Amino acid sequence: MKIILLSGGSGQRLWPLSNGAQAKQFLRLLKSPDGNKESMVQRVVRQIKEAGLLESITVATSAAQADMISNQLGQYGADIVTEPARRDTFPAIALAAAYLQKEKQCDLDETVVVMPCDPYTEIGYFQTIAKMVKAVEESAADLVLMGITPTNPSSKFGYIVPEATDAQKETRKVNRFVEKPNHELAEQLLTEGALWNGGVFAFRLGYIASILEKYVSAPTFAEVRARYQEFPKISFDYEVAERAESVAVIPFTGQWKDLGTWNALTEELPTQTIGNVVLDPEAKNTHVVNELDLPLICIGTDNLVVATSNDGILVADKAHSEDLKTHLAQLGPAARPMYEERRWGKYKVIDHIEFPDGQNVLTKQLCIRAGKSISYQVHHHREEVWTIINGTGRLVLSGEERNVKPGDVIHIRREQFHAIRAITDLYIIEVQSGDRLTEDDITRYPYTWE
Amino acid sequence: MKIILLSGGSGQRLWPLSNGAQAKQFLRLLKSPDGNKESMVQRVVRQIKEAGLLESITVATSAAQADMISNQLGQYGADIVTEPARRDTFPAIALAAAYLQKEKQCDLDETVVVMPCDPYTEIGYFQTIAKMVKAVEESAADLVLMGITPTNPSSKFGYIVPEATDAQKETRKVNRFVEKPNHELAEQLLTEGALWNGGVFAFRLGYIASILEKYVSAPTFAEVRARYQEFPKISFDYEVAERAESVAVIPFTGQWKDLGTWNALTEELPTQTIGNVVLDPEAKNTHVVNELDLPLICIGTDNLVVATSNDGILVADKAHSEDLKTHLAQLGPAARPMYEERRWGKYKVIDHIEFPDGQNVLTKQLCIRAGKSISYQVHHHREEVWTIINGTGRLVLSGEERNVKPGDVIHIRREQFHAIRAITDLYIIEVQSGDRLTEDDITRYPYTWE
Repeated sequence: MKIILLSGGSGQRLWPLSNGAQAKQFLRLLKSPDGNKESMVQRVVRQIKEAGLLESITVATSAAQADMISNQLGQYGADIVTEPARRDTFPAIALAAAYLQKEKQCDLDETVVVMPCDPYTEIGYFQTIAKMVKAVEESAADLVLMGITPTNPSSKFGYIVPEATDAQKETRKVNRFVEKPNHELAEQLLTEGALWNGGVFAFRLGYIASILEKYVSAPTFAEVRARYQEFPKISFDYEVAERAESVAVIPFTGQWKDLGTWNALTEELPTQTIGNVVLDPEAKNTHVVNELDLPLICIGTDNLVVATSNDGILVADKAHSEDLKTHLAQLGPAARPMYEERRWGKYKVIDHIEFPDGQNVLTKQLCIRAGKSISYQVHHHREEVWTIINGTGRLVLSGEERNVKPGDVIHIRREQFHAIRAITDLYIIEVQSGDRLTEDDITRYPYTWE
Repeated sequence: MKIILLSGGSGQRLWPLSNGAQAKQFLRLLKSPDGNKESMVQRVVRQIKEAGLLESITVATSAAQADMISNQLGQYGADIVTEPARRDTFPAIALAAAYLQKEKQCDLDETVVVMPCDPYTEIGYFQTIAKMVKAVEESAADLVLMGITPTNPSSKFGYIVPEATDAQKETRKVNRFVEKPNHELAEQLLTEGALWNGGVFAFRLGYIASILEKYVSAPTFAEVRARYQEFPKISFDYEVAERAESVAVIPFTGQWKDLGTWNALTEELPTQTIGNVVLDPEAKNTHVVNELDLPLICIGTDNLVVATSNDGILVADKAHSEDLKTHLAQLGPAARPMYEERRWGKYKVIDHIEFPDGQNVLTKQLCIRAGKSISYQVHHHREEVWTIINGTGRLVLSGEERNVKPGDVIHIRREQFHAIRAITDLYIIEVQSGDRLTEDDITRYPYTWE
């Protein structure tokens, strides 16, 4: 059995902790059983493991999220399939399926489960997935979905209506799908035993392979990926589920929620404050997540969420926190992420000034993890000054290698080839200056260390 | 006529905008008539000038505030007298009086007015000062005080009780002083025509000179200052006002308040937001002062004050903002100010890390104003790397002078003599590292530029 985890979203609704590179599912805010903190995606994969379902995980995601996935799920040996561009859930799932078939040489009879990477749920959810796998293996249907037992006639979800005759069975044949009904129709659907569509699908690899074959027929995964733009921009629900001739649903009843807003997330935080915070004991129903190094004092507040990061500061009444997106639009597009986790380590922007003469200066604190390195590269529009502040490493500058240690200062001019590899965890203060400071002002070259 | 302005206080109640170096009176948050912003002390001196009283101002303050005073009042030619250590208002005033007498050679018949540097008040206040000066010149009393007409029986103020027979006169002889009465007594005092003591005093220089002579008798100001610890730690009210044989009071009726709490200050801010802020139009009675470079979004809040600086972040219900001091105590003493204005320019700390191996690294952005310089100095516990990022200057390093420009990197080792002078406004990223990073790890030497 193979699991495909879908990891997408830019996670604006949890700004400033989430940004383009750090979507909501990567925020390490939830309490893990070992007393530390874990992210939504780490929680889901831990639960998959606890349910005995951890055989093989493939994460379908964007290039921007690949480093985060690798850092957070590396220990589980998860494979990562990155979309060349954002399209929709059908192409993303089809690409991951092509990877399993053509790159991993999976058997077409293999059962595949597709699921989101961030539901906040419980063990029963994963037990239901095990039942779905069994149903596929027993050929109960071509496609088996999970149906979440509704708690109210919500208009936010798609509904799966089972055949009336199957109402008491565990595996129910699907009569039809209804996308986001109005309140009145939703009430009617509940009387028919309809379930919410939670975006969890099980099928044999061959079933999806035959559908993707209609759009892109190519012998290797690399060729399928190169022709990614030929897949239609359509959701898996529309392209596959609604067109399938043989579809079944298995219900799940239990805790299931999306921690995608501050209001929902704060309900599941392990503590009222995270970070350097002094919270007035008289503050009511207030949650503060302070990821800045500055102290934060919160006095006499009520029903408030305060969140800070190098990207910005949010102070919001919890009931109004869902309006965040509208207000965020007023900031205009963020010039750049102010902190990022990368495969080689992490950085944060600690200062940025634009001078009237056009000179732009960006100062970063970098941490390169022991054994990792930054690729051999040149910049055309900026120079960089590196002050090594902790750890040791190996530097190559214009083809010459040498060891570096705290107190060493390296001046990298425009067009000068450079790379650095951390021997121990290596901390650097980097001062970039130039007329144009953009992430894409990098040309990378291969390099073999001596 | 000479004015002595008293500038003290660490201004914790307006944290995080005020700190040890930047007391509340220096915050440039009030609207000035030219449409720009001015601080409380700038507003008071502007009003002194508008009232035609600007002949000579001497500011009695601490060494920590001297640079701020000089930056903010430089244009008025104010003299600054710094106390060698903090004592109380009598020694501070006595020292400033000794300066006028022994350093500026003022006549002992000269009228002196002592006043706080930060009342939020109106023109009538300064017209009352003019009347006090006239009363001293006409020898109405040895000491003339301003009495603020009370608006309520407050227990926060000292009261001045005039002679009953003088109730209708403009200049009233003082019967007695009552320090911070309880509510009942305050009500009784109001029926007697008592006034609040606003801390404004007028007298002839000779009057105070004869009192200070009792404690320190020395021919020069430098000698008086060197013996500062011989002055008693006592307030001017107790040492002078309550012991004076001939005291009069002149009432002032009008706007007079202390903008010393966030609740009081926000009432006088020109706009609801200052800095990079998106404020939800539905937020009620909310004020946001954001001095960080990060964007701040505030949604659905009510009766809230949010203030940020490099020292920290405050989120407080306005009615509770007076409790700030208690909560601030929980932070423990601040390791260092995170930004400061100095005579030579300003700096902010942009990053600070302490490594497990004891290595300490502090990164600052410095701006040295054109024509100003940093003194010739050495550090014993740290080295510094300067990356010049904008402007031009003249550097001296181990006795050798040279010009510097953007892109230049200067590595200053422990015990290496250095100084820098800005030719144009000079911006530097400074990386300090060492086992001990404290402001006092500086030994300064004289230097004459080539």
